[in-house]
Amino acid sequence: MMHNGKDDEVLGLQDISVGQRFATDRLRVDLEGIRNFAVQFGPQPMHLDEEAARGSVFGELVGSGWHSVVLTMRLVVEARILGATPHVGVQLREIDFLWPLRPGDTLWAQVDVLEVRASRSDPARGLVTMEITTYTGSGPLVRLTWTLLVPKC
Amino acid sequence: MMHNGKDDEVLGLQDISVGQRFATDRLRVDLEGIRNFAVQFGPQPMHLDEEAARGSVFGELVGSGWHSVVLTMRLVVEARILGATPHVGVQLREIDFLWPLRPGDTLWAQVDVLEVRASRSDPARGLVTMEITTYTGSGPLVRLTWTLLVPKC
Repeated sequence: MMHNGKDDEVLGLQDISVGQRFATDRLRVDLEGIRNFAVQFGPQPMHLDEEAARGSVFGELVGSGWHSVVLTMRLVVEARILGATPHVGVQLREIDFLWPLRPGDTLWAQVDVLEVRASRSDPARGLVTMEITTYTGSGPLVRLTWTLLVPKC
Repeated sequence: MMHNGKDDEVLGLQDISVGQRFATDRLRVDLEGIRNFAVQFGPQPMHLDEEAARGSVFGELVGSGWHSVVLTMRLVVEARILGATPHVGVQLREIDFLWPLRPGDTLWAQVDVLEVRASRSDPARGLVTMEITTYTGSGPLVRLTWTLLVPKC
């Protein structure tokens, strides 16, 4: 895993620049994980029951697209691109669900820094926009653009 | 809760129209739920530890914005706006995180149908775009625009 700084270092706006690219660790998701997420947050038959899933547009049991998204956010948070600085998301432009999440998939994400700018309303903070693409062995799973509030320090 | 049709009825593109508005049920989130989500999907101190949260930009323990989003999706799925037809999301334009999720919050969402159109690539299906705003007692929590793939039937 590529870190921007030391894990315990508090990084700020001045430590991030457009064009930087980071890769997260990998994370494997299994059938139990897919069902657990669905029970809590997306109780639909295609995520829970193999029989029902065969009759769905996917033809097999798949995870919720939201499960792909939150696993992505976990990978990105754990990559500690900002060191010990918290990731505070303020906006998200566009999520594309490119491929269904399937039991046994191993996920990792690529993070590209698209924009770094000062905040108009808060002189002590700025905004960093990242494009995040998550991959499995089958190719890209989900792509999203996330804007974080980052302190100047 | 307002339903579009009977729970067991399979609704299609022809049953949804621009301007329709739905309200979901309510759902309460507690400190344990906030911590459980954070452990699984957003392991950051401001979501897990009250002491650390006091030093954060929020000044108190708050839930992950992604927790607000997936609770919203659960409320919307359970509202069964499409009856027994699965909710298959293909795209999401813009999520605005308007207010932090806090232990003890009760959430509900309002769903407005913004666009209904045929799919260019798939004659058997169409796309329905909804603006979803989730509220707590403090006001709007999160707002997002979600596009679903819906069969013509």
